[in-house]
Amino acid sequence: MLRVALLGAGRIGQVHARSIAANAHSALVAVADVHAEAAAKLAEAYGAAAMTVEAVLADASIDAVLIATSTDTHSDLIEAATAAGKAVLCEKPVDLSLARAQACLAATQHHKAPVMIGFNRRFDPNFAALKAAYDRGEIGKGELLSVTSFDPAPPPVSYVKVSGGLFRDMMIHDFDMACWIYGGAPDRVTAVGSSIVDPAIGAAGDVDTAVVTLIWNDGRIAVIKNSRRAVYGYDQRVELLGSEGLLGAKNVLENTVEKITVAGAVSAKPEYFFLERYMRAYAAEWSAFVAAVAAGTAVPVSLQDGVAALAVAEAATRSAQTGQTVALSAAMLEAAA
Amino acid sequence: MLRVALLGAGRIGQVHARSIAANAHSALVAVADVHAEAAAKLAEAYGAAAMTVEAVLADASIDAVLIATSTDTHSDLIEAATAAGKAVLCEKPVDLSLARAQACLAATQHHKAPVMIGFNRRFDPNFAALKAAYDRGEIGKGELLSVTSFDPAPPPVSYVKVSGGLFRDMMIHDFDMACWIYGGAPDRVTAVGSSIVDPAIGAAGDVDTAVVTLIWNDGRIAVIKNSRRAVYGYDQRVELLGSEGLLGAKNVLENTVEKITVAGAVSAKPEYFFLERYMRAYAAEWSAFVAAVAAGTAVPVSLQDGVAALAVAEAATRSAQTGQTVALSAAMLEAAA
Amino acid sequence: MLRVALLGAGRIGQVHARSIAANAHSALVAVADVHAEAAAKLAEAYGAAAMTVEAVLADASIDAVLIATSTDTHSDLIEAATAAGKAVLCEKPVDLSLARAQACLAATQHHKAPVMIGFNRRFDPNFAALKAAYDRGEIGKGELLSVTSFDPAPPPVSYVKVSGGLFRDMMIHDFDMACWIYGGAPDRVTAVGSSIVDPAIGAAGDVDTAVVTLIWNDGRIAVIKNSRRAVYGYDQRVELLGSEGLLGAKNVLENTVEKITVAGAVSAKPEYFFLERYMRAYAAEWSAFVAAVAAGTAVPVSLQDGVAALAVAEAATRSAQTGQTVALSAAMLEAAA
Amino acid sequence: MLRVALLGAGRIGQVHARSIAANAHSALVAVADVHAEAAAKLAEAYGAAAMTVEAVLADASIDAVLIATSTDTHSDLIEAATAAGKAVLCEKPVDLSLARAQACLAATQHHKAPVMIGFNRRFDPNFAALKAAYDRGEIGKGELLSVTSFDPAPPPVSYVKVSGGLFRDMMIHDFDMACWIYGGAPDRVTAVGSSIVDPAIGAAGDVDTAVVTLIWNDGRIAVIKNSRRAVYGYDQRVELLGSEGLLGAKNVLENTVEKITVAGAVSAKPEYFFLERYMRAYAAEWSAFVAAVAAGTAVPVSLQDGVAALAVAEAATRSAQTGQTVALSAAMLEAAA
Repeated sequence: MLRVALLGAGRIGQVHARSIAANAHSALVAVADVHAEAAAKLAEAYGAAAMTVEAVLADASIDAVLIATSTDTHSDLIEAATAAGKAVLCEKPVDLSLARAQACLAATQHHKAPVMIGFNRRFDPNFAALKAAYDRGEIGKGELLSVTSFDPAPPPVSYVKVSGGLFRDMMIHDFDMACWIYGGAPDRVTAVGSSIVDPAIGAAGDVDTAVVTLIWNDGRIAVIKNSRRAVYGYDQRVELLGSEGLLGAKNVLENTVEKITVAGAVSAKPEYFFLERYMRAYAAEWSAFVAAVAAGTAVPVSLQDGVAALAVAEAATRSAQTGQTVALSAAMLEAAA
Repeated sequence: MLRVALLGAGRIGQVHARSIAANAHSALVAVADVHAEAAAKLAEAYGAAAMTVEAVLADASIDAVLIATSTDTHSDLIEAATAAGKAVLCEKPVDLSLARAQACLAATQHHKAPVMIGFNRRFDPNFAALKAAYDRGEIGKGELLSVTSFDPAPPPVSYVKVSGGLFRDMMIHDFDMACWIYGGAPDRVTAVGSSIVDPAIGAAGDVDTAVVTLIWNDGRIAVIKNSRRAVYGYDQRVELLGSEGLLGAKNVLENTVEKITVAGAVSAKPEYFFLERYMRAYAAEWSAFVAAVAAGTAVPVSLQDGVAALAVAEAATRSAQTGQTVALSAAMLEAAA
Repeated sequence: MLRVALLGAGRIGQVHARSIAANAHSALVAVADVHAEAAAKLAEAYGAAAMTVEAVLADASIDAVLIATSTDTHSDLIEAATAAGKAVLCEKPVDLSLARAQACLAATQHHKAPVMIGFNRRFDPNFAALKAAYDRGEIGKGELLSVTSFDPAPPPVSYVKVSGGLFRDMMIHDFDMACWIYGGAPDRVTAVGSSIVDPAIGAAGDVDTAVVTLIWNDGRIAVIKNSRRAVYGYDQRVELLGSEGLLGAKNVLENTVEKITVAGAVSAKPEYFFLERYMRAYAAEWSAFVAAVAAGTAVPVSLQDGVAALAVAEAATRSAQTGQTVALSAAMLEAAA
Repeated sequence: MLRVALLGAGRIGQVHARSIAANAHSALVAVADVHAEAAAKLAEAYGAAAMTVEAVLADASIDAVLIATSTDTHSDLIEAATAAGKAVLCEKPVDLSLARAQACLAATQHHKAPVMIGFNRRFDPNFAALKAAYDRGEIGKGELLSVTSFDPAPPPVSYVKVSGGLFRDMMIHDFDMACWIYGGAPDRVTAVGSSIVDPAIGAAGDVDTAVVTLIWNDGRIAVIKNSRRAVYGYDQRVELLGSEGLLGAKNVLENTVEKITVAGAVSAKPEYFFLERYMRAYAAEWSAFVAAVAAGTAVPVSLQDGVAALAVAEAATRSAQTGQTVALSAAMLEAAA
């Protein structure tokens, strides 16, 4: 039984609390949050203790921490928790600063405590089935990967301003998806974007609609499309053209009902947002973490993977600003020297 | 908080145990089973007590019982539990004998304790969405309802012999579906069947493939298709033609992945069987029961509904044997005199 | 080059005229119609001659006739044309009277001139692909066949009165479909129907919504659903459950566009009616006839097939009237003695 | 009745011959080809005369020419035909040289004779339905357009060498699609490509897999994906995200049959290549040309449109070579000075 402390009692923390409690091999024993009240309330609902982060790290009976705090605290908490010997599952992204994430990797890579980054989409049963089919060679060699990822509605501009920008905040999921499916980081990154959904997002220096093209050194290509607004819901699709066929993972719809009238045939929309679409993925992600920690095997998403995704985001940001293809250097993917 | 005893610790009892435990408004406090060991094991997993049925009924702190025992005990247990003042959720069918079910209805209808029958499919989100759209008038007046319901594999012949036959054991779900969607019992029943899947089923006096047509007194028609074997999984679809359109609820697939190669475009199969397909429905069914008991409102599936479905099954059995349409008399739908 | 006369210049005759003219191996040389003007107009459009039926039959340069006249003239024209040595393609049904159709079969079966009945749906590329896959054994042994066949709107009651009733006029296509797919006629027929779409159809002694169940002597079942009104268009589907899987032919939609908005995902409706849906089937039917006549091989839909479909329609009509299953005797399927 | 001469009797010329002959308002009167035999054979099949190009242009009874010769002759033939007063429908692309195409535009733009370029996909009923829905405002303002266009198999390398490259030869269709849907040419073009399908294509200086991103001056984005090889057939899809929803045109499948077995649910592949997929589009394209010429209205695809698509191809070619975004100047879109 893995004894777990949850750091961060916000919306995503609450999702994780449920996964931790529902898993037969883990127990939620502590919750910490800068808002003591939020920690207390969530702790009570699950029969856990509200604690400070310091107390958590000092408590030898706690085996693991799940970091679901604000992004700017991730690197510090990863370093402190691994130093304290806790296994770590940290929400994405590792950091908004690539250099800081690389330093975090350098600081933690010789610790025994495993660090896993929460790229939850890898655990979606549909994307996992696509990846498994590809790995079994069912469509031969991958050549052209397409990722569609649209949010239902843009976040407030106040959030956009501190988000690190669309590439680091939102598309980072898709960068990880591409690197995961192809098995490694790309060579070159080309990005274009515009703020056509909301000019205020452009005024804040960000884009809300973007297309990024990644090329691997053997010529494989991936193209990622992001929009901050698809009014019909959370559009999450992956498609991979290979030498022997095409694999596609379609959206998960709200239900299977179809109505046909003189106005046409109407089916349900995609699940509205990540809480609906990825609920099963969050549970599976947690199960995979618990299983790896229990077995002492490598966690399925490493801190290195988190750095790689951030490096691609960094390159995409630069490409969108300059109109030039940006090469991804080896140095961008490594731990700080 | 509803304090619940589970009667029956078999496969379906285990499903219900999870729903009871997961619901924020109910607690599983006791488990009873003729196999004391099974009761003990399940009780332990949920921190409940293993008890005899008698002890459960005598325990005033227990508010409700969920009856998931073998069918031949249902009527007796419903009567005993309601006499003891417990709210009851009983698995389908009420009984294999229509007369016994009618007597049970007579014996319990003047008790205050609510009795709900476990027609879980009404709580499937897809069928519920279809029903809601129909009730909102989205396709006008219903005219022709089609229910497709195929199991993945036939049960052992030993089970078939004590099952009451396909109409009472399997199609009873679909009879309830038709009565629920149209809102009331049909006038006439016509049934045909054959044992083409397994001759041993025919030798046991039953059919494994059947089509039943129901007609309501205003001319509405429902047609139900059952097969004991669809090798690809649990095929569960409903389609309703109305004066202004068609509503259809399609199968729930294992995932959304599609693979296109020279061999064609391959998608996932339907969920394999009821534990996969109706897991959400079981939870929703339990929630609806708990909510109705808490609010003191009518349960959404009455014992009367259970009798009606059994009456249709009885009529279908006779029609298949005689080759004649069988009228459903008012007496068949009522409590015993 | 097959030299062809078209008998009947109405709506369906015009469809056939186009097929005859477009086929590289046939030429439309004559058109006859009781309305001389209609014949003249259609003949002129294709550079053919307007002639009387008598003149057509007397003209030795004409190789084949396509009979697209009113149903009550079919048997007489088939007999006269085969007696004159013409190859015949006759629209369905052979006749409204089973006895008359059986006499026609008796009168023509020893002639060399081939007679083909226009069950056009066999030539629809979708149904043909389903049949071919079944015949290759792709789903094992057929067990339960379902045919859905809904018209977009009911015909005028004046037509209903002379139509021979839904079973002979409309469902006869589906009877042929079932006999064709399973390869032979059923043993027993059970039919139910109602006039829920339009009470005037009921007042005229017919039904507008019906379900017929057919059983073959080895236990295979087919169920056919008909409605005179599906406001969204021509609903034409076939589904076959076999021992190793399910084959289904879905509707042909007007286009492949899908629109997803907050109101849901809207796709196109089915093609509106038979002229849209079966245009390719009519052309393929004609090609198959021309090819068979040229090669001297058996035509793909025989007059015997036409009699069999009519015998099933006769049995269904009786079953719907009596509420009893009707056995199909060998005598009903044979030529008149 | 439009009297038409077909220039070019190859594969695509034969497709057009059928459209011309089948259209009630046009007649194929002459065929010319550098291979006199090919011209003679095709002319004979349609009762037309085999002629030289010179004779065609000199024949005052010929109203229009359809140019389906090799690309390097297009500009010369367009100029000669318009000078001779013939209406022209010319296959895409106008030319491999943007400068030559611009000169052709300059040379012909003051003639009265209409010149239409054969971007057949605009006439596909699915893309046309998508465009119409967008123009009706059904998804609000367009923001992100995606075009997927994969051929079933790469052409011979010998063809690749003279093709002008993937952007001018293959993706030019998609450039026109994007300009047509959005209504005008983009501002900037970013292209990446690789020769992962066949290294010999790379050795010939071309790519076989490419992604191009186009941006309009108001921030609208289009992304186009091309591959020379999708083994399952001709993958032709368009998807447009707008401020109020998403419009998508899916592939046209070979048939509507679905087979479900233990191996999954198998549907048909897309139509194999352009002759299958776009047969209806070619006929509709020709009808639109004939109708415009007859009515004296503007043809639906102008020579200017052909120049614009070529300008985008030119920019994409440069971008793929340099790794830089290329701006599309006004001069690139205009007639030669």
